[in-house]
Amino acid sequence: MPQLINRRDLAFMLYELLDVESLTEKPRYAQHDRGTFDAIIDAAYRLAEERFQPHAAKLDAQEPYFDGERVHIIAEVKAALDAYIDGGFLAASFDAEHGGLQLPYTVTSAVQGIFTAANAGTAGYPFLTVAAANLLRAHGTPQQQARYMKPMIAGRFFGTMCLSEPQAGSSLADIRTRAIPQPDGRYRIVGNKMWISGGEHELAENIVHLVLARIEGAPPGTKGISLFIVPKFEVQADGTLGRRNGVRLVGLNHKMGYRGTVNTVLSFGENEPCIGDIVGSPNQGLAYMFHMMNEARIGVGLGATMLGYAGYLVSLEYARNRPQGWPPSAKDPTAPPVMIIEHTDVRRMLLQQKAYVEGALALCLYCARLVDEQAVSGDAAQRKELALLLDILTPIAKAWPSEFCLEANKLAIQVLGGYGYTRDYPVERFYRDNRLNPIHEGTNGIQALDLLGRKVMMNDGAAFHLLVGRMLQDAESAAGIPELAEFVDALRAILDTVVQVTQALSRVGAQGKVDLFLANASAYLEMLGHTVIAWQWLRQVRCAQAARAAAYGADADFYEGKLRAARYFYRYELPRAARLAELLLRLDDTCLTMPPSAF
Amino acid sequence: MPQLINRRDLAFMLYELLDVESLTEKPRYAQHDRGTFDAIIDAAYRLAEERFQPHAAKLDAQEPYFDGERVHIIAEVKAALDAYIDGGFLAASFDAEHGGLQLPYTVTSAVQGIFTAANAGTAGYPFLTVAAANLLRAHGTPQQQARYMKPMIAGRFFGTMCLSEPQAGSSLADIRTRAIPQPDGRYRIVGNKMWISGGEHELAENIVHLVLARIEGAPPGTKGISLFIVPKFEVQADGTLGRRNGVRLVGLNHKMGYRGTVNTVLSFGENEPCIGDIVGSPNQGLAYMFHMMNEARIGVGLGATMLGYAGYLVSLEYARNRPQGWPPSAKDPTAPPVMIIEHTDVRRMLLQQKAYVEGALALCLYCARLVDEQAVSGDAAQRKELALLLDILTPIAKAWPSEFCLEANKLAIQVLGGYGYTRDYPVERFYRDNRLNPIHEGTNGIQALDLLGRKVMMNDGAAFHLLVGRMLQDAESAAGIPELAEFVDALRAILDTVVQVTQALSRVGAQGKVDLFLANASAYLEMLGHTVIAWQWLRQVRCAQAARAAAYGADADFYEGKLRAARYFYRYELPRAARLAELLLRLDDTCLTMPPSAF
Repeated sequence: MPQLINRRDLAFMLYELLDVESLTEKPRYAQHDRGTFDAIIDAAYRLAEERFQPHAAKLDAQEPYFDGERVHIIAEVKAALDAYIDGGFLAASFDAEHGGLQLPYTVTSAVQGIFTAANAGTAGYPFLTVAAANLLRAHGTPQQQARYMKPMIAGRFFGTMCLSEPQAGSSLADIRTRAIPQPDGRYRIVGNKMWISGGEHELAENIVHLVLARIEGAPPGTKGISLFIVPKFEVQADGTLGRRNGVRLVGLNHKMGYRGTVNTVLSFGENEPCIGDIVGSPNQGLAYMFHMMNEARIGVGLGATMLGYAGYLVSLEYARNRPQGWPPSAKDPTAPPVMIIEHTDVRRMLLQQKAYVEGALALCLYCARLVDEQAVSGDAAQRKELALLLDILTPIAKAWPSEFCLEANKLAIQVLGGYGYTRDYPVERFYRDNRLNPIHEGTNGIQALDLLGRKVMMNDGAAFHLLVGRMLQDAESAAGIPELAEFVDALRAILDTVVQVTQALSRVGAQGKVDLFLANASAYLEMLGHTVIAWQWLRQVRCAQAARAAAYGADADFYEGKLRAARYFYRYELPRAARLAELLLRLDDTCLTMPPSAF
Repeated sequence: MPQLINRRDLAFMLYELLDVESLTEKPRYAQHDRGTFDAIIDAAYRLAEERFQPHAAKLDAQEPYFDGERVHIIAEVKAALDAYIDGGFLAASFDAEHGGLQLPYTVTSAVQGIFTAANAGTAGYPFLTVAAANLLRAHGTPQQQARYMKPMIAGRFFGTMCLSEPQAGSSLADIRTRAIPQPDGRYRIVGNKMWISGGEHELAENIVHLVLARIEGAPPGTKGISLFIVPKFEVQADGTLGRRNGVRLVGLNHKMGYRGTVNTVLSFGENEPCIGDIVGSPNQGLAYMFHMMNEARIGVGLGATMLGYAGYLVSLEYARNRPQGWPPSAKDPTAPPVMIIEHTDVRRMLLQQKAYVEGALALCLYCARLVDEQAVSGDAAQRKELALLLDILTPIAKAWPSEFCLEANKLAIQVLGGYGYTRDYPVERFYRDNRLNPIHEGTNGIQALDLLGRKVMMNDGAAFHLLVGRMLQDAESAAGIPELAEFVDALRAILDTVVQVTQALSRVGAQGKVDLFLANASAYLEMLGHTVIAWQWLRQVRCAQAARAAAYGADADFYEGKLRAARYFYRYELPRAARLAELLLRLDDTCLTMPPSAF
């Protein structure tokens, strides 16, 4: 079985780079120490290896199916999830008062990532359930929390997020599902939802759907959307299950990857009443949903990263053990072939994967660390700053890993050659699974508009300036170390360019040329994304460089690897950002002005 | 059903850009005119639409399986192939004396491409058969041609190419299959072959395997490899089938895509004698195989292009018909949503696909046209020049489309969003099918070594200088046209850079630092590849610009589209080549010197 993650690297990220231990100085995490963090990571790794990874290929080959009445999912999924729940992993991120372990989000993110690397399909169910429970924790009434959230945290109920409809994916303003007020204060829900992961199954006693719908007479567009709890089975006052609610499975979507997470089309209230309860106030549904969006999007980025990481490790192991061919300079045709890791182009493909996945992991965990800082900060100004940073980093943490760790999966297949193209190795499955991540939770095109059109510009560029300030500060702190000069200089240079581009675009936006301003938003996202990943690599090498002097053996190799991968990223990848900056400075309108008739 | 190719574009390429009609002035093609070319293309398009495309998704879902005795393939495959053979498509590229239509390779390439776009899996069988028959046409004895080649051209026998072995894929020097001379001049073949497409089925009366093996006592490495004909059933002097030969199916490989073309592990002479006949002279097997390699590799590039093209057309149709969202500048929330082709980022993804697939198609057909020129040229010096050009363009025509038209398929999925990720639309299948193309017929890493290490350097850089000369000549012929100045200037600038890089690398090679010289061969391939595609776009816009003045309606739109796509390629893509040139000029050794222990 291939490794799920490099444990040495994970420890580096958590303890050396992000100093997660220091969180335990805060009352919120005072009951923890590195020992408890390591214990849950160890336990997660073991469970992932023993119960998630072994059925991943089988679940992909034998995807859930609907016989017209029931959804069938191979038995290994429920067995794995039961063990997961028993192990306390579903509750791990919740507070002690809710039965959770009150662990930092940085640690539970790493834990979640391990399960995704082992089996993205099976890991999807608790991911969704935690997200739904979190939403009710933030916005539900105490009664709603008792009735729905607690059984979700206990793993008795699973959750879903019902946003998209067949005609409305990226554009939630277009949703049509209706909520009709009833005399008892509840609502009848009528409509259809599409792409609902975990929408129907028998893995849990009940399924709690969180549904966006319009109350009759609500304003058009996004300002008229409310959020409803729609359980599969009504939950009675004493917590027991009541009548079957009128939410029905229309059919399953058959995807190229992520096949293990059942993906559904649902109808609400078509032939029988479907009753829902409103969460919070009317017309605030999208705001509640977006309240959780940062974490959901960082979660997508992390998932993409872990699939990339798992593929990297498979290809690395293969390259170390597969003999074939000779280096170009070899002269003796009777010499035995070398392991393919000796071929420069194979090393290039491994270094590229390493630079992508370790850069992306550092970014995702950095964002998770910001969430934790928010939770423990007693200072309102600091919390606001953290929120701004998270806001601007979120579209990058979602989109960059989902583009480039997919690319890593493509390279992993290439390292294995014909073998990598077969279903006998997991790399083609990672590639298929990972292809979802640039699409869901807001396509990467949407992330680009969100980044440039909203996050960079908001509060007079406050988030952008904060982010640039943090990057410059880290460059400053590494300045003067000869070994790092290459990185410091390059990061400062690209930051100059990024600021210049951003100012130029701001002026176009300020002139009201909004379509031109946003015409190359995707290029802007990629430019800033590459810059942010370069920053994350600088942070890593500063850490590695300091530690290397006293390290020996495998540890010294590990730190050396960080320096090498950073060099790869700065030399082979970062110039891409400068190239995109040139395009952006030209305010190129090639795409904006392309007449549809000319395609 | 989605379109397979833009017929207007294909006509542009064949008749306006490449002037294929002028070939009919040569005796070899004198019996043809544009009418016969169009007739076979029309017939191919009809057959592809009616018999190939309808079962493509089913064949992907119900891939061939082996029950331990027989390989089962859904019946639609044989029905389609029988119609293909009856229609004369398998014989089309062969000379009239062999029962063929004696069509230019440029035209039969287009025909082959149409079938690949419709159904890559089913189209694989005749592709392999034609390649095998071609090899015997070039190197077989008259008796071998009568016994094996003729029934292949007639579609009674199918063919395979048996090169790879489980331990030897990229490195054919490592093959171990043995050929033991028998007293009657024939050989007993003993060994295993891997990744053999079309290795076992009942689609034809017989299967003719062309097998690389070592005659006992042959020199080590590539200089000791011979080529053998190994039929599944022996063919007797009168052409009837004799005893079952000892080549046996060990098992099937289960791939992520290209599932319809059965892919096999074969054993030769394991439990029963397996008899083969040598082709040509001993130890010349690889030379014979490589004799056909240019065409095989251009065929791979064309297949990759056509999968990219088909995906582009699906996403274009979807974008024209899917309403969702509003442009950023829209103010009225009650306005109906626009078609997504109105969104700039969707246009960007369509333009990017168009720039890739039409650029790649122009290159592949340009190469095919060189093959035709070779066939009709009476001038030895000119033939040599054409051969050099083909030699240097082949690794680019194989690798560039297989990288970037795969990228096009990724973008097609993204345009369709969640729908594109399902098996209800063909784009995810194209993406899976196309992932094979960077791997087979020499991985793209091998192509890069072939390009820089062999093709660029051979004959003191003769092929390289010829290619640069052709590109400069086309730039010259477009100079002075104001509308094309942007392209002419950019192409000249990148050619200067490419020449400079090539000289710098040559010096390193001449100093004997062969590993450093080749350390960034993949970057070199991408740099030269982007340059060559830019050249192909210049050729297209020169043609389009000249024709546009007199065009109106859809034709004017078509030419306008060529100019726009060229602009996209030059502004968004070509700068990548300059960035890679900088890396190459630095002689970066990051990958070369990476210690395996540091991963």
